[in-house]
Amino acid sequence: MPNSSPSPVVVIAPDSFKGSLSAQAVAEAIAAGITRARPDAVIRLCPMADGGEGTLDAMLARGGERRTVRVRGASGAPRDAAVGLLPDGSAIVESAEIVGITDEVAMRVPVEMRSTRGMGEAIRMLLDDGVRRFFVALGGSSTNDGGAGLLVGLGLKLLDNEGRELEPTPAQLAQLARVDASGLDARLAQASFLGMSDVNNPLTGERGATAVFGPQKGVAAEQVTTIDAVLQRFAAQLEAALGRSASDLPGSGSAGGLGFALRMLGGEFEPGAEVVARHLALDAALDGANWLITGEGRSDVQTLYGKAPFIACSHARDAGVPATLLSGAIDPAALERLSEHFCGCFSPAPGPITLDVAIRDAAKLLECEAAQLTRLKYGA
Amino acid sequence: MPNSSPSPVVVIAPDSFKGSLSAQAVAEAIAAGITRARPDAVIRLCPMADGGEGTLDAMLARGGERRTVRVRGASGAPRDAAVGLLPDGSAIVESAEIVGITDEVAMRVPVEMRSTRGMGEAIRMLLDDGVRRFFVALGGSSTNDGGAGLLVGLGLKLLDNEGRELEPTPAQLAQLARVDASGLDARLAQASFLGMSDVNNPLTGERGATAVFGPQKGVAAEQVTTIDAVLQRFAAQLEAALGRSASDLPGSGSAGGLGFALRMLGGEFEPGAEVVARHLALDAALDGANWLITGEGRSDVQTLYGKAPFIACSHARDAGVPATLLSGAIDPAALERLSEHFCGCFSPAPGPITLDVAIRDAAKLLECEAAQLTRLKYGA
Repeated sequence: MPNSSPSPVVVIAPDSFKGSLSAQAVAEAIAAGITRARPDAVIRLCPMADGGEGTLDAMLARGGERRTVRVRGASGAPRDAAVGLLPDGSAIVESAEIVGITDEVAMRVPVEMRSTRGMGEAIRMLLDDGVRRFFVALGGSSTNDGGAGLLVGLGLKLLDNEGRELEPTPAQLAQLARVDASGLDARLAQASFLGMSDVNNPLTGERGATAVFGPQKGVAAEQVTTIDAVLQRFAAQLEAALGRSASDLPGSGSAGGLGFALRMLGGEFEPGAEVVARHLALDAALDGANWLITGEGRSDVQTLYGKAPFIACSHARDAGVPATLLSGAIDPAALERLSEHFCGCFSPAPGPITLDVAIRDAAKLLECEAAQLTRLKYGA
Repeated sequence: MPNSSPSPVVVIAPDSFKGSLSAQAVAEAIAAGITRARPDAVIRLCPMADGGEGTLDAMLARGGERRTVRVRGASGAPRDAAVGLLPDGSAIVESAEIVGITDEVAMRVPVEMRSTRGMGEAIRMLLDDGVRRFFVALGGSSTNDGGAGLLVGLGLKLLDNEGRELEPTPAQLAQLARVDASGLDARLAQASFLGMSDVNNPLTGERGATAVFGPQKGVAAEQVTTIDAVLQRFAAQLEAALGRSASDLPGSGSAGGLGFALRMLGGEFEPGAEVVARHLALDAALDGANWLITGEGRSDVQTLYGKAPFIACSHARDAGVPATLLSGAIDPAALERLSEHFCGCFSPAPGPITLDVAIRDAAKLLECEAAQLTRLKYGA
């Protein structure tokens, strides 16, 4: 059918489909579908992230340098991991990349043996390079060490009651008698940290890191109280040593307490997707746009609590642009609430299919669904 | 979001979702979804059928009388079956209802023992009631008797070489020596038949009923040649007796040769969905409409060969109304060809789900998807 309506301007701002496609690949598949239905469409790609896996990629999408550093992974084994140097001189360090829950080597070691020391090591290398402003993506970690590892990587000493140095793992922190902060990297005084996280939990307690996020990292039910107490004691020691307190602040419970360590270094927090949206100039992309498509691997009510599609949708609403959700799966129980925000919520599943097929064919299915949605919305 | 655009007028004209929902139930679920998104929408329900199961229901949707008659099922066992008396004095008789492939009793008997005699019996009862115009829905039969049963039900005699009467089944037709048409109901001379079918195959041969449709009814590969030859001999005898021929005409191969019997009675053929569309006044429903939604249990390239969604779409195009396909499943391999006709092809699957769940939750999922499509198309 010929179509003489003005060319649609579409912003494509999805998160990654975890375990299937990167945000960039999702965005490209959707773009291909739109273009198939409307070759005249103006496409603006804005692949998103929310502080978890893929945040480094998203932050580097508008330029900057990806650098590989050799640091300890969560298990303590050395690992080549990427960090990002941004054009303005700041850097981005991603927990999912350095101590991520998808790192099979780390996951072979029990959670009480895992540490975020590699995060501190990476930051130290960047301090050596003159970096003083850090974005720290806090999603997708495998660790639950209260951020002790990060601080040890930056010079903190953990000592037992005979003055012996301890590893910054929950197991060894159980022997903690005192912390020695005298060796903390002096350059931290000039450094600023922005934690990218939508987690508002405190470090310990019922709503703390161990109780809420520990189980998905392998903390057994009977370990929760013990490890929580270990982190509480570590926090008390550190707070006394540094003369400030942070364990009750929102966000201290993110990334197994890595958030607490950042707080103790004066760090601030912001939902990861908000930081990414600002960094990618999503609002500028929305200027004059007619439609935004966002999505993620699976959408449910959690989507409405700071996930990338929700943030993208909020920006679109502010700009008066309708936002459509195109996710690998939509929880039917969440559809009503999602519908309050999104102008249509869709899955690319073409009928009953298995998860394996959905993952295998994700790019093709997304392209097809995007084409169909474009046809419906604009005719083609 | 408030919406000040004029109320959309939507025609909902789906086929049934076989094994899951009737066309009426599909249409109502879609209507509920549209209304949820746009309470001001004007909805015109036009549940469709294509000559198979559900055709009787569709033809009675605008009025008429459903009557139960006791006739032989395909196995020969008596069976209460529905026929329809239409307001204009014509009647509708459905193969799927009387000798249907979903009749478990009939399916326990091998195909060479099944017969369409019940169809002839039903027609005879309707002749008794004064009916002279018949719609015969030809889809969904379990039989492969060349229509011998229908004619025997109307007075034809099948005789072996000792003059004994034979049952009108493929097994007994193998003994056929001659047919005696002298007892055929005389009222048939005043009767007209419209076969509702999109099958163009001849009665026998490579493209005949037995070779093409026999296997799905239980004709074993090694039976095809034998049964085809039996039907060919029956046809030759009948054509000689009646002084007309029909076995090579398109449509004679529909419903296991029931089409041939209708042809021999002077019957005409039309795609079932076209007859239903006319009977339901689909074109009048499309007048002034903004959108048509159609669908079926599963859409593939076959959809484009006279299936109800395609017929509904064609009428919509003629009326300048965009037609969207909402089917339980869309064959991805057919999407490109379907897209040449439909303004968007969608499945209500909210992600990877099993067929069981898709069937169990079909109404709810359809309602949700229709609401989402309406939001996307009209905003809400």
